[in-house]
Amino acid sequence: MTHFMPTQRTTIHRMPTRATYDRVVVEAILDEGLYCHLGFTVDGQPYVIPTIHARVDDRLYVHGSSASRMLRSLKTGVPMCVTVTILDGLVFARSAFHHSVNYRSVVVFGVALEVTDPQEKYDALKAVVDHVAPNRWDDVRRPTEQERKATSVLRLPLEEVSAKIRTGPPLDDEEDYLLPCWAGELPLRLTPQVPLPDPRLPSETSVPSYIRAYQRQLHPKESS
Amino acid sequence: MTHFMPTQRTTIHRMPTRATYDRVVVEAILDEGLYCHLGFTVDGQPYVIPTIHARVDDRLYVHGSSASRMLRSLKTGVPMCVTVTILDGLVFARSAFHHSVNYRSVVVFGVALEVTDPQEKYDALKAVVDHVAPNRWDDVRRPTEQERKATSVLRLPLEEVSAKIRTGPPLDDEEDYLLPCWAGELPLRLTPQVPLPDPRLPSETSVPSYIRAYQRQLHPKESS
Repeated sequence: MTHFMPTQRTTIHRMPTRATYDRVVVEAILDEGLYCHLGFTVDGQPYVIPTIHARVDDRLYVHGSSASRMLRSLKTGVPMCVTVTILDGLVFARSAFHHSVNYRSVVVFGVALEVTDPQEKYDALKAVVDHVAPNRWDDVRRPTEQERKATSVLRLPLEEVSAKIRTGPPLDDEEDYLLPCWAGELPLRLTPQVPLPDPRLPSETSVPSYIRAYQRQLHPKESS
Repeated sequence: MTHFMPTQRTTIHRMPTRATYDRVVVEAILDEGLYCHLGFTVDGQPYVIPTIHARVDDRLYVHGSSASRMLRSLKTGVPMCVTVTILDGLVFARSAFHHSVNYRSVVVFGVALEVTDPQEKYDALKAVVDHVAPNRWDDVRRPTEQERKATSVLRLPLEEVSAKIRTGPPLDDEEDYLLPCWAGELPLRLTPQVPLPDPRLPSETSVPSYIRAYQRQLHPKESS
């Protein structure tokens, strides 16, 4: 299946031309986004919590402390929403009204279930670490049984999914193009700075290439 | 009041040393964050939507199309949650388990109400534009009556609020400090790139200083 089937909840009504259900596009956004915002409802009150995710094929994993309110609420199988947003730039129009941002976002609806199979849980934890920096898992001490018990992993199937993307310059009203005001885009990029070694690290420890040359996948527009 | 009063919902149980209710800290995160994730519940299903916000004193404003599902749902006064997250870096530990991220986030709970007073609505729209780039409002065409009607603005009082902050190097288990693995922080920063003028902009139009030298407020650690 190359496209997600829009449902009532994932059908985008505002600016429908910005919507896409293309699986390749959705997966690229989920993989590039370093973290997500996870939404769930407890006693009628919505909660929105930032957390780290990872995608493996058509499954999204989130993890957290087994003792956390978030994970305790979610592992009973409640409806949730996971949103990943990548800000690509600010859009300055000639009118206040047409100011906008360039972004790529994915919204996933579903019921998350706790991962109980030990192998799937191990693979999901590996995916979460490698999502942040590819192959990091190979360099670090693996989780002990106690650490695995202290961590809950939830699986959300990628079924009810939509993406929304805005790119390009502002779209002003025709008569406003004559105004003398500067208009255009200011691209923004999440940029790695100089790595800061742990104060207790022996000074001869070399910086791995995945940190020295750290990068997220480039914007599809630029990588082509 | 210099601190927000923790409530049952805003009391942070996981890593409570990372929590703060300090108003100055909360306001700085809300002001630096370019966008928020807004959570609300419709028919038991949580929605998490990225959108632009602005803070004016002790009020948070979000805006959107009057016709949007989100705004239509929210203007009836339903409980919502607004979360602003700023990612400051990746934390590489010697063990998979202690990997983390450095971040600053704010969670606001409350019932948003639609702003109906014309002056408050005008001021909120100005605040949203100037939140993205200070004084931009002065350079652009103001919204017409029709545009103001097409835009809904919601006000959320800053009352039930918490912030969570992680900084610094990884915290490994004592015995893991002997492992040969690189460990430390990789700071990340949202960095402006070269502005892209609108293709229809006259070539002599100068780039305003707030775009040429665009910056978000620096990390408190660095600005001191």
